[in-house]
Amino acid sequence: MERLYLFDTTLRDGQQTQGVVFSTEEKVRIAKALDDLGIDHVEGGWPGANPTDSAFFEAAPEMRATLTAFGMTKRAGRSAANDDVLASVINAKTPAVCLVGKSHDFHVTTALGIRLEENTENIRASFAHIVGLGREALFDAEHFFDGYKANRAYALEAIHAAYASGARWIVLCDTNGGTLPQEVYQIVTEVIASGIPGDHIGIHTHDDTGNAVANSLAAVDAGARQIQGTLNGLGERCGNANLITLIPTLLLKEPYASKYQTGVTLEALTGLRKVSRMLDEILNRVPSKQAPYVGASAFAHKAGLHASAIAKDPTTYEHIDPALVGNMRIVPMSNQAGQSNLRVRLADAGLELDKGDPALLRILDRIKEREGQGYAYDTAQASFELLARAEMGRLPSFFDVERYRVISERRRNAKGELVVESEAVVTVTLPGGAKTTSFYKNEGETEQQDAGPVNALNQALSKDLGPYQAYIDDMRLVDFKVRITNGGTEAVTRVIIDSEDAQGRRWSTVGVSANIVDASFEALVDAVVWKLVRDGARS
Amino acid sequence: MERLYLFDTTLRDGQQTQGVVFSTEEKVRIAKALDDLGIDHVEGGWPGANPTDSAFFEAAPEMRATLTAFGMTKRAGRSAANDDVLASVINAKTPAVCLVGKSHDFHVTTALGIRLEENTENIRASFAHIVGLGREALFDAEHFFDGYKANRAYALEAIHAAYASGARWIVLCDTNGGTLPQEVYQIVTEVIASGIPGDHIGIHTHDDTGNAVANSLAAVDAGARQIQGTLNGLGERCGNANLITLIPTLLLKEPYASKYQTGVTLEALTGLRKVSRMLDEILNRVPSKQAPYVGASAFAHKAGLHASAIAKDPTTYEHIDPALVGNMRIVPMSNQAGQSNLRVRLADAGLELDKGDPALLRILDRIKEREGQGYAYDTAQASFELLARAEMGRLPSFFDVERYRVISERRRNAKGELVVESEAVVTVTLPGGAKTTSFYKNEGETEQQDAGPVNALNQALSKDLGPYQAYIDDMRLVDFKVRITNGGTEAVTRVIIDSEDAQGRRWSTVGVSANIVDASFEALVDAVVWKLVRDGARS
Repeated sequence: MERLYLFDTTLRDGQQTQGVVFSTEEKVRIAKALDDLGIDHVEGGWPGANPTDSAFFEAAPEMRATLTAFGMTKRAGRSAANDDVLASVINAKTPAVCLVGKSHDFHVTTALGIRLEENTENIRASFAHIVGLGREALFDAEHFFDGYKANRAYALEAIHAAYASGARWIVLCDTNGGTLPQEVYQIVTEVIASGIPGDHIGIHTHDDTGNAVANSLAAVDAGARQIQGTLNGLGERCGNANLITLIPTLLLKEPYASKYQTGVTLEALTGLRKVSRMLDEILNRVPSKQAPYVGASAFAHKAGLHASAIAKDPTTYEHIDPALVGNMRIVPMSNQAGQSNLRVRLADAGLELDKGDPALLRILDRIKEREGQGYAYDTAQASFELLARAEMGRLPSFFDVERYRVISERRRNAKGELVVESEAVVTVTLPGGAKTTSFYKNEGETEQQDAGPVNALNQALSKDLGPYQAYIDDMRLVDFKVRITNGGTEAVTRVIIDSEDAQGRRWSTVGVSANIVDASFEALVDAVVWKLVRDGARS
Repeated sequence: MERLYLFDTTLRDGQQTQGVVFSTEEKVRIAKALDDLGIDHVEGGWPGANPTDSAFFEAAPEMRATLTAFGMTKRAGRSAANDDVLASVINAKTPAVCLVGKSHDFHVTTALGIRLEENTENIRASFAHIVGLGREALFDAEHFFDGYKANRAYALEAIHAAYASGARWIVLCDTNGGTLPQEVYQIVTEVIASGIPGDHIGIHTHDDTGNAVANSLAAVDAGARQIQGTLNGLGERCGNANLITLIPTLLLKEPYASKYQTGVTLEALTGLRKVSRMLDEILNRVPSKQAPYVGASAFAHKAGLHASAIAKDPTTYEHIDPALVGNMRIVPMSNQAGQSNLRVRLADAGLELDKGDPALLRILDRIKEREGQGYAYDTAQASFELLARAEMGRLPSFFDVERYRVISERRRNAKGELVVESEAVVTVTLPGGAKTTSFYKNEGETEQQDAGPVNALNQALSKDLGPYQAYIDDMRLVDFKVRITNGGTEAVTRVIIDSEDAQGRRWSTVGVSANIVDASFEALVDAVVWKLVRDGARS
């Protein structure tokens, strides 16, 4: 099997994303995760370009992966040894250095404003210098594909200058992201024919036409042996090639799986979803549900026909086993679902019903009716479970809500400043008829998180539930989504609430009402009841 | 130039997305947008499968596009004319009918549990029946690529049965999304060689390996002439091929631009971003910033080196002119572009500012600051206008809100029934120092529309505004959108409110707060102030 190398630039090109600035600690965490995954090169940033990039190289962890510093070829009018920008890159003392340089004549003359032969000489001198220092050298040939189409001879001259000067990898960059897979295949083939062997050629693509992954594969098909990309496709504009998508394709799909070997083992692959989530968590981003392989919906089967086939054999509607990438199958409920879909979903919740059990039809009818009112049970799986249990006569009656009342107020405080505060009171009836009333007040002297009525209601509801209190003490509300939707002909508000507990379980509940507070409260009560059911509380 | 056909299945396959249920009104709106864009076929759903799909075909708008009903080939053991599932599809009376059927032997025997020849006969009889009724017929050959690899002879037998029976289009489906571009190219080439001409072959791909777009292009390269996809790549699991990405590539990039013609004109293409946003708005989804062509970041240039080159010539780091798809360049380093955009927007609001006026920079800075806190001025044009007026010293001070208080309550009424009600009180200071306090209570004996705290606040605020009351009597709140977003590092709530008046004007305002009620109130006050400004009220 031939070796295929993976080069990650999340910490460098990924940081070009609008709104993304990594701290040094975050960079260290990401680098470690990349190393554990089995990535070959980790590009850490541009030493000297900004303080965090420089700081990272000082703090970089021990890795199997080759730590790589990024920079650019020396500028015209000085020697490589006397270029201070290049010196900063070299001073980071990394085993590998990746320098970007021009290969498109238009950019040499327009953006740099120098002659073509000056640029070629800058490339030659820079790589001779780095290689002379014993570093592994990579050349990111910027705008290579556009340059090749505009002036093939010069584009080849530029990369051959780097290769002849000892660059280990010539990385062909589709910097503007406008090149399509067939062109990539054709041009990489021609570059190899020009005398640079495929195992010295890398590919660096961007997703401006939605083809970053396909372009990377096309380059490999043509003979390239290094792929540059980022976690979750982070990167400027539409992002770089997504390594999280490429890695499973390379490991699991033909012709790649049996032809090539990467540094990523099948065992490490099962941690892929976790690596993807870690980056989202660091960036405080909502993970993409549709992300290939690792998205929450990547193995979700909503269509009734699909779900019944999946129950017979998962390969009917799954291109790989989700466990291979650490993901899971989901058979959500919705008004498209049939009975077999329902039985699979019930089994997931530990509820077995025989084929043909009349409760199946009752549950489906009830779901259809409620979805007509605006409920959405494919997202709110915990509420679905409670609905099913109720129809099956297997839902204990833990408590009744007698009353709630919530107040939000904006007023001037004693100092004359406007403050916003919320308070709530909730009264429930417990088994045996005892009543408990709980009160919560958020006194916001300034605008602050959780100053709203839903949080106040949640705090009051979960403050004193008598014998159940111990079961819910570790619950917390982690997400809250609101949508105005149609319940029949009227506009109603649908609220979805995500809750979490100390065991790391996360569950979603739904409420619908013409009143946003009431919809929220319904979802909050479902969240509590689900937790009581799951933890075996007795009514 | 050869004709390439676009088939949209947002309303059918798109609805297989987790969490997506379109109302009939939403389906009509989407169908109209697809028609305006120039899509050839609009697949509306599966008549008979669920009530909203059936309702849409009754309510479907007049279109140039061919309205298409989806269904499946007849079941074994009955004739096509006597299959009630097929009958429901036909009864929708659409000019075109698309039937899915099996072409993978494993699915015939495992999922359907019938013999191969029975399946072939079902295909043959179904298409003979539909074509006999004068309908344009399409065959979605499910799992075609997997089937072809497993049992080439049977996969070809299945599609040739449909073609020989008069199906206009044989659509090769990569149902599980696991096929890669090279395979798609190879297999489509072989299918055409088997005797079905390319202008009778369609391609239907899914994004499970991130290659849905590339697979569609590979099929066209091999000779297929119909592409099936969805807006924004909506669809089950990782989604279908994204038409919003494919259309500009087909219209603007070689070899497609000069080889093929679609129903989408270059003029319609400039509305592409708007169509993409419309779908996100209907789904209440945050638009993907990184989306190819239409994403907010698709032409954002963060890197300093890139920004300075862009200033010299935008083609240095842009693969197309963003205006071609209705998008805009964002260059955080230089606000030259920002200023001219801003002047256009201000002129829309009747506010003229000279080029170079220092207020332009102040307004841009303020927008940046507020957008960092979670505000969104691209949607909330009215709030944008108020912000600009404030910076220009042209915003009258009509009134100050002294205090508000809103209560939502669920309790038992005298009959022991649970009722939900809301009440609000608002105190404002008018010019001259007079204070006015208004109270509103919704006594909900049953669940009803507008029982919520925001409506109560709105009613109280607009009940007695002293000298301004005559200006606002014809205002009403027509839409209300809520999103949890990031304001700096904290999660905050953003509320967008749409208001309307008797003149038929509709305007949007925004509020942001950690408290949903407070965010709503801010947007309500902006809505009132905008109306006062526009109607020339004096402070």
